[in-house]
Amino acid sequence: MAAGGVLDQLRVPVVQAPMAGGPSTPALAAAVSEAGGLGFVAAGYRTAAAVAAEIAAVRAATSRPFGVNVFVPSPDGADRGLLAGYVERVRREAAGYGAPTGEAAWSDDAWEEKLAVLVAERPAVASFAFGCPPPEVIERLGEAGVEVWVTVTEPQEAERAAAAGAGGLVVQGVEAGAHRGTFSDADGVGEVGLLTLLRLVTRVTALPLIASGGLCDGAGVAAVLVAGARAAQLGTAFLDTVEAGTPAAHRSALRGGRRTMLTRAFSGRRARGIVNGFLARNGAFAPSAYPHVNALTAPLRAAARERNDPEMLNLWAGQAYTAIDHDVPAATVVERLAREIDAALARREPLSAPPGSA
Amino acid sequence: MAAGGVLDQLRVPVVQAPMAGGPSTPALAAAVSEAGGLGFVAAGYRTAAAVAAEIAAVRAATSRPFGVNVFVPSPDGADRGLLAGYVERVRREAAGYGAPTGEAAWSDDAWEEKLAVLVAERPAVASFAFGCPPPEVIERLGEAGVEVWVTVTEPQEAERAAAAGAGGLVVQGVEAGAHRGTFSDADGVGEVGLLTLLRLVTRVTALPLIASGGLCDGAGVAAVLVAGARAAQLGTAFLDTVEAGTPAAHRSALRGGRRTMLTRAFSGRRARGIVNGFLARNGAFAPSAYPHVNALTAPLRAAARERNDPEMLNLWAGQAYTAIDHDVPAATVVERLAREIDAALARREPLSAPPGSA
Repeated sequence: MAAGGVLDQLRVPVVQAPMAGGPSTPALAAAVSEAGGLGFVAAGYRTAAAVAAEIAAVRAATSRPFGVNVFVPSPDGADRGLLAGYVERVRREAAGYGAPTGEAAWSDDAWEEKLAVLVAERPAVASFAFGCPPPEVIERLGEAGVEVWVTVTEPQEAERAAAAGAGGLVVQGVEAGAHRGTFSDADGVGEVGLLTLLRLVTRVTALPLIASGGLCDGAGVAAVLVAGARAAQLGTAFLDTVEAGTPAAHRSALRGGRRTMLTRAFSGRRARGIVNGFLARNGAFAPSAYPHVNALTAPLRAAARERNDPEMLNLWAGQAYTAIDHDVPAATVVERLAREIDAALARREPLSAPPGSA
Repeated sequence: MAAGGVLDQLRVPVVQAPMAGGPSTPALAAAVSEAGGLGFVAAGYRTAAAVAAEIAAVRAATSRPFGVNVFVPSPDGADRGLLAGYVERVRREAAGYGAPTGEAAWSDDAWEEKLAVLVAERPAVASFAFGCPPPEVIERLGEAGVEVWVTVTEPQEAERAAAAGAGGLVVQGVEAGAHRGTFSDADGVGEVGLLTLLRLVTRVTALPLIASGGLCDGAGVAAVLVAGARAAQLGTAFLDTVEAGTPAAHRSALRGGRRTMLTRAFSGRRARGIVNGFLARNGAFAPSAYPHVNALTAPLRAAARERNDPEMLNLWAGQAYTAIDHDVPAATVVERLAREIDAALARREPLSAPPGSA
């Protein structure tokens, strides 16, 4: 399939961001694809068998194209001393909360098994985060008819992904909710605002770009199209839709007005969430140790979900979360975006038009 | 003058960001205004008499409208213990460098005297940063025929500025070079990406918006116009123009590729600059103490400028600095932006256009 081929098939240039860990469901992916956008299955934190089952569930609900997102394994570069200190800290907090913690271990999140599922199931798109898959993986997926997108957060990452053979780039601005898709978790890497990043990336590659980060309405989407993107990817906008699997405590926090910030507190990798108790107490102490810290806090977060407690949970959200729709079908969001994109693009005329005609 | 009146007179919707401390010059302001944009005098760190002289110099060079930017005094909220520790640290570094330091004192940067200059000289626009002037100040300027713009970095600041009577809002995204214009320097306040911030601000006010932060080309400017801005404000794009007063060491750093980050190292207030030796060594220790720290480091920075040493100087730059023009007249930048804005706006058609016609 030609690069950008899937984007040409969309009635609305809107991609539903994969949201691993609960919010993404087959019903959400199918609803977005049916509404004219591109739905996504989030393969992160799932077994390969569960991913295959989710793909089957999406296919049962729609014949439209959709994508699957996979995390590229990070090398195990955690500082053992810093990690041990944080494990101790989180264990104390969990003990006080009466909840268990998990083993702070590295894993590759079933990388090879998930690649095998992608090759066998052939979704329209496979997108990747946390790094660039090796060229041979991209080639193997291409031969299977799967278009490969790579998430980038710096112009240098865009160059590397293009050189590896990517067919499209998800350009993720610092505004985005949840994990930074950066190739490296080093401080300061990949914290560029979306519009700036988009313009810098167009200077290093002609690949189709999917703009992501803090977009909440069609005027914002129209803006990134004017700035050179072929589509926009939105996650937070779908977090409180009826098809999403977002926990109740997370949904209620989305109706509040607290600030978001980047933190390693929950996972050991920078991610943007709404500030809550756990983040405020622990963010300054969390080392760069992914997925170790994610595994460490997983049972604690599960307990918080069960208790409907927003203070102990990762409340991932982008910087525009206060502007999202609540409690509506995902199709309503896609339709609103389409209307607003049209209105925004119709409003502008070139400067050379007669004054006052715009 | 009606709100937004000045913006209606611009041939190109581009405002030159005021860049206090050297880069802004009367020649730069006049060149941008002559080219069809809006030039700005930066009143910060200058005496009121020097500001009046700069205004006269701009008027001698152009009859087009221009603006003057003034810093709103911050309350003296510095933590004395933290400040004393940082003074000690910077004095040691300066001693090793063989350069003096200044007294870490608070000042109001001649606030009342500068307001009197604005009322007497009546530039087309007075813009403010670091807070919102009191309603009576805005009213007094309005009566003098001066349009008042306030720099905002959060929707809440936009609401406050609108309530105080501002005629326009400079919406500053986190991508912007130099100081954050936030009303408060508290950690995490006002660090929103430009496109997200713009969309959130349009939800709370109908005032004309001037978008600022990380814009480097006409496609980016076109994008913010589509997203609801009336104009774009660019500073870094003019930093290496022939009319700018940017020191040589700063100009050469602009040709490099180092990352930018927010730091309080040089001034005691968050500002974005290219990472260099002084920033890397001291950023983590700098307290929120403005303008105390600015006064402390001023003689050291002057020495570095003299020695043409980019490692001891504040290298303010926005996140798109690698994309700027070098060593060209400011008019060349304005003309390029105008062409690119036109091209970007002409490229897009509404989604409802027949497929393939865009």
